[in-house]
Amino acid sequence: MNRKCIGIDIGGTTVKIGVFTAEGELLHKWEVPTRKEEGGKNILPDVAQSIKEKLKAFGIPAEEVLGAGMGVPGPVMPDGSVEVCVNLGWKNKNPQEELSRLLGGMPVFSGNDANVAALGEMWQGGGKGYRDIVMVTLGTGVGGGVIIDEKILAGRHGLAGEIGHIHVRSEEKEYCNCGGRGCLEQVASATGIAREARRAMEAKKVPTAMEKFGSRISAKNVLDCAKEGDQLALEVMDTVGHYLGLALSQIALTVDPEVFVIGGGVSRAGQFLIDVIQKHYDDFVTISANKPGLTLATLGNDAGIYGAARLALS
Amino acid sequence: MNRKCIGIDIGGTTVKIGVFTAEGELLHKWEVPTRKEEGGKNILPDVAQSIKEKLKAFGIPAEEVLGAGMGVPGPVMPDGSVEVCVNLGWKNKNPQEELSRLLGGMPVFSGNDANVAALGEMWQGGGKGYRDIVMVTLGTGVGGGVIIDEKILAGRHGLAGEIGHIHVRSEEKEYCNCGGRGCLEQVASATGIAREARRAMEAKKVPTAMEKFGSRISAKNVLDCAKEGDQLALEVMDTVGHYLGLALSQIALTVDPEVFVIGGGVSRAGQFLIDVIQKHYDDFVTISANKPGLTLATLGNDAGIYGAARLALS
Repeated sequence: MNRKCIGIDIGGTTVKIGVFTAEGELLHKWEVPTRKEEGGKNILPDVAQSIKEKLKAFGIPAEEVLGAGMGVPGPVMPDGSVEVCVNLGWKNKNPQEELSRLLGGMPVFSGNDANVAALGEMWQGGGKGYRDIVMVTLGTGVGGGVIIDEKILAGRHGLAGEIGHIHVRSEEKEYCNCGGRGCLEQVASATGIAREARRAMEAKKVPTAMEKFGSRISAKNVLDCAKEGDQLALEVMDTVGHYLGLALSQIALTVDPEVFVIGGGVSRAGQFLIDVIQKHYDDFVTISANKPGLTLATLGNDAGIYGAARLALS
Repeated sequence: MNRKCIGIDIGGTTVKIGVFTAEGELLHKWEVPTRKEEGGKNILPDVAQSIKEKLKAFGIPAEEVLGAGMGVPGPVMPDGSVEVCVNLGWKNKNPQEELSRLLGGMPVFSGNDANVAALGEMWQGGGKGYRDIVMVTLGTGVGGGVIIDEKILAGRHGLAGEIGHIHVRSEEKEYCNCGGRGCLEQVASATGIAREARRAMEAKKVPTAMEKFGSRISAKNVLDCAKEGDQLALEVMDTVGHYLGLALSQIALTVDPEVFVIGGGVSRAGQFLIDVIQKHYDDFVTISANKPGLTLATLGNDAGIYGAARLALS
């Protein structure tokens, strides 16, 4: 039998859905809009309806589908219940039970979306072939996911992998969304990198290729300038690499995965970014040369559906 | 049947051995000297001989013993092999296979001693009733152990729980044994606390009760003075608490255990020490009030034999 599994990644704007073989091949992928009105009560019915239609259209019989997994943008309790999910309007519900009912009893599993994406990268992405990885997602914010023995480590209070809020910078004056100051996210997210560049341009009155972008400079602009050898942009990225290397060293000495997988929009800078981090990471892990390596994520925005599908195989 | 298990904690001076019920009651405990000469070749035969004699003397039949566990002062590979164990003179051997053979085929399990002690505290100590704990041992150095789902997380390179070498203090000028600078161990170990006090006495020419100890001041002296309200000693402990709170916050946002268990000689200061750490820890974990708590270890030097015995039940 050709066993299949379904991966669902619920975002604030669209829900991504994929049908996979049990071996991890993505067969079909599509999206449905996320209808957030009325407490997001239509989201799961829309998803279920869409899955039923597509399976029929693709000629996939229900008995070939082992189950579905779902990444949810918020904390998910071990029983699958969600207390509050701000981006979707959900409150006190159990989306995995509800979706299973809507899909005629199909087994449905769920997890926090950052953790699920990490599982996806372990299964078929930058962490393929490894059983223990820590994924670091450098996007608008900084997210993370810890995978131990091919399973998500969610933590007892849902805080495992919340590495964007690891405190790294004691001299930071501005507050982070979490209420703290000096979080990794404040310096290593796309937003943080851009802010760091603005600060550097204000503080140092030296010529820099970054100037032409002014206050609207993006992380990509900074990285492009740095790659072209712009001195101030290189200094900014050195600061970013310093704090990322520091946080990864702390994580290495706590869970010691086989590899760190670096993803998110900022990671499109590729090996250049890895090199920027590696130098500082090596400086901070002096106890042993035999330590977790750094590698790039490869699944991009599909990591969520891959990981969700992998959940259904657990 | 009264099922028993044996816990062995191999130290550089003595080997501690305990016989436990499978429910975790310590029935008998004794020590044998660690004979390190000739590459430590007598250590395991001595242990085996002693166990056989004692079991006979206590009237415990071999069939009641489920197995033995062993804590080893160095990195232990997943198959139980040890590349090098400086304190014992061991090189390239598999102590758990050897001891099993010496004990007539009794199942023997092994692990790094700090990790094994953490397992002991989870089983019958400060972490009793929890499945996920991180233990922090504040002794001559700072050690640690991460227990997830009642199992040791050793890490893929043996670095998990090496929290004494988490970098926390960027302004540190002296080097740590690991070759780094600013490790947690440099400020939060007994040695580190005493050094911090000497530095404080040198830097500030204010009267302090610590003065009478001079350069031979110990961590216990510092803690005693702080408890009595000495201002400079309180400042020293506030610095120590700051860096411990910082490291624990980083660990909380990585693995999020149910509880941190604080042990080692320094933890004899009791709730006073917990309070010193808690204040800073709370400041560094602002993302959620629902987070791992802090508690004291309760097994003292017996944590190793408890954890080793628990290994035999895995």
